[in-house]
Amino acid sequence: MSDRDRRPNFRGKGGKPFQKGPKFGRPQARRERESGSDGPVILYGWHTVAAALANPERQIRKLYLTENAAKRLAEENIATRVAPEIVRPSDIDRRLTPDAVHQGLLAEADPLPSPGIDTLALEGIVLVLDQITDPHNVGAILRSAAAFDALGIVTQDRHAPSETGTLARAAAGTLEAVPWCRVVNLARALEEIAEAGYWRIGLTGHAKGTLAEVMGDQRKIALVLGAEGKGLRQLTRETCRVVARLDMPGEIKSLNVSNAAVLALYIGASRLGLMG
Amino acid sequence: MSDRDRRPNFRGKGGKPFQKGPKFGRPQARRERESGSDGPVILYGWHTVAAALANPERQIRKLYLTENAAKRLAEENIATRVAPEIVRPSDIDRRLTPDAVHQGLLAEADPLPSPGIDTLALEGIVLVLDQITDPHNVGAILRSAAAFDALGIVTQDRHAPSETGTLARAAAGTLEAVPWCRVVNLARALEEIAEAGYWRIGLTGHAKGTLAEVMGDQRKIALVLGAEGKGLRQLTRETCRVVARLDMPGEIKSLNVSNAAVLALYIGASRLGLMG
Repeated sequence: MSDRDRRPNFRGKGGKPFQKGPKFGRPQARRERESGSDGPVILYGWHTVAAALANPERQIRKLYLTENAAKRLAEENIATRVAPEIVRPSDIDRRLTPDAVHQGLLAEADPLPSPGIDTLALEGIVLVLDQITDPHNVGAILRSAAAFDALGIVTQDRHAPSETGTLARAAAGTLEAVPWCRVVNLARALEEIAEAGYWRIGLTGHAKGTLAEVMGDQRKIALVLGAEGKGLRQLTRETCRVVARLDMPGEIKSLNVSNAAVLALYIGASRLGLMG
Repeated sequence: MSDRDRRPNFRGKGGKPFQKGPKFGRPQARRERESGSDGPVILYGWHTVAAALANPERQIRKLYLTENAAKRLAEENIATRVAPEIVRPSDIDRRLTPDAVHQGLLAEADPLPSPGIDTLALEGIVLVLDQITDPHNVGAILRSAAAFDALGIVTQDRHAPSETGTLARAAAGTLEAVPWCRVVNLARALEEIAEAGYWRIGLTGHAKGTLAEVMGDQRKIALVLGAEGKGLRQLTRETCRVVARLDMPGEIKSLNVSNAAVLALYIGASRLGLMG
């Protein structure tokens, strides 16, 4: 399948519940990333680069393609938008770590603009990540957010990975599809999320109720996940309306954070009646 | 929580359905790994090393500890089994990649022996991994297998990562707790699994029925997962009794493989009535 149909469709805010595509509002409501880095984002691999090229919000600075990759883009009618530089595979190899699978495509791009919390308006699930820094995990979470039609993810600038090639690759093209809101202060963002009508649920193994139990009949849900080991920070937990655990029958009740996220999304989406 | 209570408890095979602990049989039924490597497995980090020390099946060759780590093991009454060499943190740093968090513990150990397919006997879920090679993913899958009380995982020797520090660290101590059966030929292993009475379900996005639908009333389930991108190999798929998909409401129906695994485990365990 091509990634061309996957680009996010930033329409106006509000709209019908569960409408496809837009989750956050238009540019005027967005903020530039405050992480301070002006360096380009390095994107590589077929899905990642094809999705970036198909996303009009993504500013492409430079594009390096092997002859084969250029041919494949042409065959799939994906416009390169900037004149590509045709290179040998080894030229791209040299820019990346040895285990990086680039498939003959590498782009230098601007980071995507971050939508503002104030653009959140719809029913559904928002994922809030508290100090989750591993790019593999955040990438996998973006991918799961796309698969379960989440409204977007929220991270704190200082404690989240920036858009790196590793993260983009783990996200398998969904970096372009899932609204990612970067905020300066997560506790304040959680208050804004509450004002927008979201029921903030902090996930922790120590909670008494399960996620399905505490969701009740709420239709706008913010699921807050903490880093492995550390869990939710005290301030983050206090800003949640309620805490919940994920039900597991085994003796060792601990999951990789992206695994916990996908399970929470599944349980949440099931409870909201979004499945099948 | 200490890892001391987490060690696997290899009792005799058979036994009551869903009994805790043992899933595969005793040593006489196990085979040595056929991967041919005689090099030691490098284990590092608190959970990983503490769990290895607590596992009598794990042969420890050498143990390097910082003073603090040695003190912490003593405080938690974890026997080191071999005389540790007290080192500086930088000595351990030098053995590992810069992002490795070792917490002052590094062990050189033998790989764990692999249990044989013929020891599978209980009701529940076995995970079969077809050419899943990323150690982060296999580690996370082991962890989820422990959390959902799976009977064990099965991989093909040539197409699975060996026990590395990265994998052990991603498994967060569960490398010692989840039976991991390495086989030479996966298709043949799937036939043995069928003979043991397991309903082999291949997971693929192209299937018509969902996992819950195809499980029916089966009580012994083998869930077969393929590598991302490639999916199940044709021979693997043909050896499955039935195929199934995971239900997702989003437009991009693709998950990281460890995320797909945890979801399949949750859905399978729910269907088997193992939850709550």
